Amino acid sequence: MSTIIYPENTSPAADAEAIRKACQGWGTDEKAIISIIGHRNATQKKLIRQAYEELYCEDLVKRLESELSGQFEKAVYRWILNPRDRDAVILHVAIKERAIPNYRVVIEYSCIYSPEELLAVKRAYQARYKTSVEEDIAQYSTGHLRQFLVGLVGTYRYVGDELNARVANSEADILHNAISTKDFNNEEIVRIISTRSTTQLVATLNRYKDHYGSSITKHLLDDTNEGNKEYLLALRTTIRCISDPQKYYEKVIRYAMNECGTDEESVTRVIVTRAEKDLKEIKEVYYKRNSVTLDQAITNHTSGNYKAFLLTLLGNE
Amino acid sequence: MSTIIYPENTSPAADAEAIRKACQGWGTDEKAIISIIGHRNATQKKLIRQAYEELYCEDLVKRLESELSGQFEKAVYRWILNPRDRDAVILHVAIKERAIPNYRVVIEYSCIYSPEELLAVKRAYQARYKTSVEEDIAQYSTGHLRQFLVGLVGTYRYVGDELNARVANSEADILHNAISTKDFNNEEIVRIISTRSTTQLVATLNRYKDHYGSSITKHLLDDTNEGNKEYLLALRTTIRCISDPQKYYEKVIRYAMNECGTDEESVTRVIVTRAEKDLKEIKEVYYKRNSVTLDQAITNHTSGNYKAFLLTLLGNE
Repeated sequence: MSTIIYPENTSPAADAEAIRKACQGWGTDEKAIISIIGHRNATQKKLIRQAYEELYCEDLVKRLESELSGQFEKAVYRWILNPRDRDAVILHVAIKERAIPNYRVVIEYSCIYSPEELLAVKRAYQARYKTSVEEDIAQYSTGHLRQFLVGLVGTYRYVGDELNARVANSEADILHNAISTKDFNNEEIVRIISTRSTTQLVATLNRYKDHYGSSITKHLLDDTNEGNKEYLLALRTTIRCISDPQKYYEKVIRYAMNECGTDEESVTRVIVTRAEKDLKEIKEVYYKRNSVTLDQAITNHTSGNYKAFLLTLLGNE
Repeated sequence: MSTIIYPENTSPAADAEAIRKACQGWGTDEKAIISIIGHRNATQKKLIRQAYEELYCEDLVKRLESELSGQFEKAVYRWILNPRDRDAVILHVAIKERAIPNYRVVIEYSCIYSPEELLAVKRAYQARYKTSVEEDIAQYSTGHLRQFLVGLVGTYRYVGDELNARVANSEADILHNAISTKDFNNEEIVRIISTRSTTQLVATLNRYKDHYGSSITKHLLDDTNEGNKEYLLALRTTIRCISDPQKYYEKVIRYAMNECGTDEESVTRVIVTRAEKDLKEIKEVYYKRNSVTLDQAITNHTSGNYKAFLLTLLGNE
């Protein structure tokens, strides 16, 4: 469930006008901006962008980019875009702004988003960057990690409740044979994890646990070959995303806020992309695991307008 | 351009009635069936199926399957289905009814069909078979061929006229370096051929010819490793499909009808899938290359109702 609190009936023109006012003159009234856009859903934000464009012949997204700065600006930018454009931006940053792609983001979109949502993200990506997600991932990665990520993002997975118990058993055995002989690069692992439907894969992973007494993610830790590190981490991330998305997101946020500092990019990504989906459930999982609320953790690890904005998206009035 | 000759205004109910009559009593009036469905486009066939169902509470496709037989039945079955269902059937047969997938068919759909058409075929495939194209291809192939085919069918290619001349040059060099050192399994080959947009890839292949004096398909013949045979044939097929679809289809038909016999499956596939698209151009290319018309070749290599039906689709009254 969504965490944001928004009024049912709003006036896009009045909202656009209030944002315009907050941007004019010396300085910017960030609090006013948060109080509006932090309390609007995707449809309402779209109408505000349209109203702003009509009233002031100016792109609201660009205006906010120029008015705001730092992590706060990045978060607002991702929040004000329509969801699929935002996803395209996040994916592009993940693929291109690092030495190797931030495979976590690629995996999230490939495994947690529905095939139709993933397709919509790919379309938005092409419209924005004039290249395909597939060619960019392929270009910026290598070896087993590349093969795995390209297969993962390329598969238009079957969505349906049909599940083949025979396949679940035999593929659990195939996975176990490969892993127990330390044949971690076995292409069957890539095939099974990257192409099977979520329903089928969950059944296979359950059979694996039943027959071999432990989850496959534990067994994937047994590899000590440094060259396989990223690939195996990607495999484990994928299995987590497929098995339990909320638990996965909780872990992302937990790792992003620790004693060593805060990875704002990850915090922003989870909160902005899940606020209108399942952030409520993620908050519950977070509290259970950490005995501290996510709101409290955010309060401790962030500051200023950025903090105020995240807390608003988390459902604080 | 299309080759079929069809009247603009037809009555789906009258067509359904005439087909029903042709199916009733002793024997079947195949000529009557050909004279109707061989002269109807996709929309008209759809309306006939609907009218038949309404009038007789019976599925026309199933009725025709039970009335007809042999290659004629197979051709009619593929023709009477709606195009994306037909493609799903052809793809499924290509993937599952052989020891290894008939990669030619997979490559045709991946490279000659537009990304949107390929997506529609994937949807029809899932609706019909309750599995994804990707998982079936992955399951029924292995090694480099698998990696290549899964990448190819999975890529939602960018379609646009943008082309990066720098990339065309550098990737022509990458391809040539791999091929000249006989590193045919180099993963960069798979990446470039399976993920780049058609526009970009054609430019790269042209640069290759400019710089290295010969087409890449020729150079791919230099490998003598038997284990690579299918994979390299698939690579060459892909390059042909991307470079010149009509020339590719001409070759498929030419190889399918020779002294050793006739590969009716391939002949049917090309004629049925291209009749409403570019079969006219394929006929022209065929005549140029063979100095005999495609109609004449079909007349020589096929017989009976199957022959009559193919000739009708080829535009004979």
